[in-house]
Amino acid sequence: MKAITFHGVSDVRATDVADPKLVEATDVIVRITTSAVCGSDLHQYHGRGGGALVQTGAIMGHEFMGGIEEAGAAVRGVRTGDRVVVPFSVSCGQCTWCRRRLPTQCTTTGRAVFGGRFGHVWGGGQAERIRVPFADHLCEKVPAELSDDDALFLGDILSTGYVCAENGGIRPGDTVAVFGAGPVGLLALQSAQLFGPARVFAVDRVDYRLALAAELGAEPVSLDRGDPAEQLRALTGGHGPDVALECVGHETPFTQAIQAVRPGGTVSSVGVYVETSMGFPAREAFFKGLTLKMGICNARNYMTPLLPLVQRKKLQPARIVTHTLPLKDAPRGYAIFDAKQDRAIKVMLKP
Amino acid sequence: MKAITFHGVSDVRATDVADPKLVEATDVIVRITTSAVCGSDLHQYHGRGGGALVQTGAIMGHEFMGGIEEAGAAVRGVRTGDRVVVPFSVSCGQCTWCRRRLPTQCTTTGRAVFGGRFGHVWGGGQAERIRVPFADHLCEKVPAELSDDDALFLGDILSTGYVCAENGGIRPGDTVAVFGAGPVGLLALQSAQLFGPARVFAVDRVDYRLALAAELGAEPVSLDRGDPAEQLRALTGGHGPDVALECVGHETPFTQAIQAVRPGGTVSSVGVYVETSMGFPAREAFFKGLTLKMGICNARNYMTPLLPLVQRKKLQPARIVTHTLPLKDAPRGYAIFDAKQDRAIKVMLKP
Amino acid sequence: MKAITFHGVSDVRATDVADPKLVEATDVIVRITTSAVCGSDLHQYHGRGGGALVQTGAIMGHEFMGGIEEAGAAVRGVRTGDRVVVPFSVSCGQCTWCRRRLPTQCTTTGRAVFGGRFGHVWGGGQAERIRVPFADHLCEKVPAELSDDDALFLGDILSTGYVCAENGGIRPGDTVAVFGAGPVGLLALQSAQLFGPARVFAVDRVDYRLALAAELGAEPVSLDRGDPAEQLRALTGGHGPDVALECVGHETPFTQAIQAVRPGGTVSSVGVYVETSMGFPAREAFFKGLTLKMGICNARNYMTPLLPLVQRKKLQPARIVTHTLPLKDAPRGYAIFDAKQDRAIKVMLKP
Amino acid sequence: MKAITFHGVSDVRATDVADPKLVEATDVIVRITTSAVCGSDLHQYHGRGGGALVQTGAIMGHEFMGGIEEAGAAVRGVRTGDRVVVPFSVSCGQCTWCRRRLPTQCTTTGRAVFGGRFGHVWGGGQAERIRVPFADHLCEKVPAELSDDDALFLGDILSTGYVCAENGGIRPGDTVAVFGAGPVGLLALQSAQLFGPARVFAVDRVDYRLALAAELGAEPVSLDRGDPAEQLRALTGGHGPDVALECVGHETPFTQAIQAVRPGGTVSSVGVYVETSMGFPAREAFFKGLTLKMGICNARNYMTPLLPLVQRKKLQPARIVTHTLPLKDAPRGYAIFDAKQDRAIKVMLKP
Repeated sequence: MKAITFHGVSDVRATDVADPKLVEATDVIVRITTSAVCGSDLHQYHGRGGGALVQTGAIMGHEFMGGIEEAGAAVRGVRTGDRVVVPFSVSCGQCTWCRRRLPTQCTTTGRAVFGGRFGHVWGGGQAERIRVPFADHLCEKVPAELSDDDALFLGDILSTGYVCAENGGIRPGDTVAVFGAGPVGLLALQSAQLFGPARVFAVDRVDYRLALAAELGAEPVSLDRGDPAEQLRALTGGHGPDVALECVGHETPFTQAIQAVRPGGTVSSVGVYVETSMGFPAREAFFKGLTLKMGICNARNYMTPLLPLVQRKKLQPARIVTHTLPLKDAPRGYAIFDAKQDRAIKVMLKP
Repeated sequence: MKAITFHGVSDVRATDVADPKLVEATDVIVRITTSAVCGSDLHQYHGRGGGALVQTGAIMGHEFMGGIEEAGAAVRGVRTGDRVVVPFSVSCGQCTWCRRRLPTQCTTTGRAVFGGRFGHVWGGGQAERIRVPFADHLCEKVPAELSDDDALFLGDILSTGYVCAENGGIRPGDTVAVFGAGPVGLLALQSAQLFGPARVFAVDRVDYRLALAAELGAEPVSLDRGDPAEQLRALTGGHGPDVALECVGHETPFTQAIQAVRPGGTVSSVGVYVETSMGFPAREAFFKGLTLKMGICNARNYMTPLLPLVQRKKLQPARIVTHTLPLKDAPRGYAIFDAKQDRAIKVMLKP
Repeated sequence: MKAITFHGVSDVRATDVADPKLVEATDVIVRITTSAVCGSDLHQYHGRGGGALVQTGAIMGHEFMGGIEEAGAAVRGVRTGDRVVVPFSVSCGQCTWCRRRLPTQCTTTGRAVFGGRFGHVWGGGQAERIRVPFADHLCEKVPAELSDDDALFLGDILSTGYVCAENGGIRPGDTVAVFGAGPVGLLALQSAQLFGPARVFAVDRVDYRLALAAELGAEPVSLDRGDPAEQLRALTGGHGPDVALECVGHETPFTQAIQAVRPGGTVSSVGVYVETSMGFPAREAFFKGLTLKMGICNARNYMTPLLPLVQRKKLQPARIVTHTLPLKDAPRGYAIFDAKQDRAIKVMLKP
Repeated sequence: MKAITFHGVSDVRATDVADPKLVEATDVIVRITTSAVCGSDLHQYHGRGGGALVQTGAIMGHEFMGGIEEAGAAVRGVRTGDRVVVPFSVSCGQCTWCRRRLPTQCTTTGRAVFGGRFGHVWGGGQAERIRVPFADHLCEKVPAELSDDDALFLGDILSTGYVCAENGGIRPGDTVAVFGAGPVGLLALQSAQLFGPARVFAVDRVDYRLALAAELGAEPVSLDRGDPAEQLRALTGGHGPDVALECVGHETPFTQAIQAVRPGGTVSSVGVYVETSMGFPAREAFFKGLTLKMGICNARNYMTPLLPLVQRKKLQPARIVTHTLPLKDAPRGYAIFDAKQDRAIKVMLKP
């Protein structure tokens, strides 16, 4: 089959690879109808994260969905022909951590991610087909009325954006600042609106992204106009927002978020921090009395409850899709997304 | 009157100062029966915290209690003769932040602390008398059956230790690690026991403090035996404790706490961070998905609800008292406490 | 001045009464610009609630707002000329219960309500002027850009509707059924939308009220089409809604709500139950494992946080206003509201 | 094998029945080492609960533990020889309700209970052996150091008592009243102590049960001394306890609990209400603004987290055991327990 494989920094290619096969009786083979390029794919693409690089030849991608083409003998909850979306992290559903609802910590799979650093074990989703283990646990059925573009992100960035908002502890009437108006930030913004804030601010440097944030109900705060913490305080009577959602994953926005929020406020962060250590404004965080929530999203927990919100259009994830390319053109998709060419926000791939 | 005043690094003195007087109709004058030396007094004593030094001649101390000797005309909730304890931070009870239950952020007083950096405005409590403003709001009446040693800490380190435990979100059956077995850590430990943990660990280097922690129900973890995160994981089946209570206020224990807790766990910190920036293990915090709670204690909120727990001996704050000196000997008290001489944990001062 | 006074069952009259005067230094006199007739005024009007009737001649009404005409010497937070709205219940802000944020339980005022059963003590708001005690605590300033019709309900039915929704513990994606599409139910419905439900149902018998509920985003469930619990289960895949908001205050809708919600669900009720005892489906509530939240709204707590939501039009309370009458025509307003004449939902009174 | 079977009101007998056999590949056969008579067994015994009676010949009992004697081919998490305890309700672990952590609502088993009304399908545990389905899900392994008497109640009344306390939302410093000092009430009392209350009251009529409650740290309130709501208010400065735990399951204690708790308080109830309807003091519950939590315990959720508390002796369930009889003497056990003969609290059965 055709698949997008890793060959070094800034070098992904459409290549021919062997079709995946059922290995365990609890596996399924999914014929992929849509996949996408994620911001964290760019970490691989750029060679960030030290020893965490995938191996040459590994199939990329952890955002994918499609139809079940083949199911192992022990699969009960889904069957051949079912249309399903799958979370980015590979988990068994049965180990201590899975039972504690922390599937990203699954000890059975060693915290694996599809197309991740153990790419040769768990092939990625930028391909025509993929082997999905623990299918009863991992496959979420998708109702026919939902488009692929609305369903796909349940498995990764919609759940991530939602968790970022939920972790913020937003109360009705609060003010919320979203740092980063990329794919995750824009879905965090949509998710924040579910919690009844009086005002939402979107902080970014890229005008076309701020413009979409404004369409989604946010007041734009451009980094080009100076320190965002100062701007946000000025916009909120000197107090600062109640909650900051940090969706970038670098020291700078994390620090700005801490500086921006009001005393007693919360900074919720889902950006992927690849640095082992970074600076932290401890004194300010202490004297303000902040809550910081960090972390990788346990997406499996959120797919089922978020589905009805997408069905009822209370969440409209497809609004962030700007490009749809044939799978074989994925290398161009990476480049467009990476360079923010052509007003790119989210690049989808279709076989 | 006699008072302990600041005269430079490592130089506090018992001096004669003018008696405080009523200024506003909402003030009271408290004749102090007991005060104490706090770990954060040592920040002043050592000249840490940059420009935040108190001025020469300022009266030290923010832990104090006593009897009301004189009350302003507008004071309603307390009266002359009442025995009261007062929180360390000076707040009005009426401003936006006070109404939001964040009295440490009081804009009326400019976030003042008794005996703090604005010491000439708000004299400290290591003295024979003190002026307490907003008396209806700040004074907590103390029942006759409570000793001074059991009541005093409500206004500062007991509330602080309690908040540290409460912020940890401890659930019955959890394992908890307390970093630091000094006065705040030991009261955080006592408070943690209120939340039904299966096990509590106390991490420190000082044997006699670990010994008291053990008497209070903790399993001691000595820093002399190596990395506490490794020790804690080994003691908890490789998982790490569910909750870490950081009661020291330096980068090292904060980082150790993050390294120690299990995925999905919480690090609650009440140590006073005087550094404007410090290193932070962002990647580990992210991939574990941690909650971090930091902050100065809004003690006024906790004095009333904690009082019955002290009355019923569910909290026994006086157990940490090791030394009681005459007020005039406070300079020796500072030195003893600072050097951990003579198995010192908490030094009390009586006029 | 002109005021609406009680003279027996179904007999309220516009009469001339003495102007209120300042009594305590913490009082203000408010010149009323808008008041309204509340569903619980009808309890008085109908003589329900046993011995709780107001006395003949008492001024009716607990929903009112206006401008401060005169302020006592000790009033600090507001001043003459300020435009304010006031909660329905009279509380001191200082007693044990007020400090616990339960102002409806205020012991200083004996749980008084403006225009309530102790009407001669605390005159009601269906009048030209009213004396408001504890003005610093009770008066919420209203920004100039808000209309009276949008601001008024903060003091009573908007806060009540909001609390009903908040007590429901609605999570994003939940299904919610609102029992009763009268004034409180419609504001509970608006408030429920702040919590991100996937679907909201409105249950009532009155078509024009269900029509407004539908405009506000609800799916109507008519009592004319049979048992609402059965209808709601059929609409939710047999499960029942996650949360029921009971805004009527009778045994029948309370029981229907319990029968409707899913296992593990919540019934939140703010209807005023005047019966001392009523039937309760204990077995069903037990085997389903329900949470029931009941109670009178501590409106004072919610006025400040809800204000920005009204300012930003996330809540649009004025949409329920159907009638605006001169104060002197209030008797007709009671009759219209009581009989649901002329598609009445909420009747406003202007001097 | 020998088993205790139902033959009519007040008629249970030790009879010889066929040994259970593996049916599904996910079943295990447990050789029972300890079972017990539960208060809800008495509902069957007395013929209460209308059509819910078990059929003649059905094996009684839903509290049991033992060693796995035989395991189906698909069982993975436990194996032959493992010592296990099993929850009272039969659930699959996979259906919609099980995934929502409401195993008592399991649709796969039709909300079945071991030895319950569908006794012929799921035999009870007062027997020498029992077939346990969905063994990976239902079996909780018991560490060797725990006695049967300490481990058994995890599957039923300890989890039930714990949930009652947890649902009460007890905060450190609260006052708690436990209604009923029978087996569930005494374990709710022990569990309440995990949440740091300042005071716990136990309400009952039976002196020897109140005496054990007092040993467990409660202040006894005897129903022989008059209305418990009045007694409790008098004991709490007129306020009433913050939380009432209702562990009886009748209208009288439920009403008393509502009358006793303070405004804004919580009544948590786990008594099994067999009445389809009962009286409810709606007006008092409304004007006080109460939270009521009711329900059958989803015991499976609590067995794993409570286990370390029993291991560390923070919970000591075996303290309620008063009688241990041979299995064949169970009929006498029922009679003793029912009549509260011989200071009976909990009757254990050993083959």
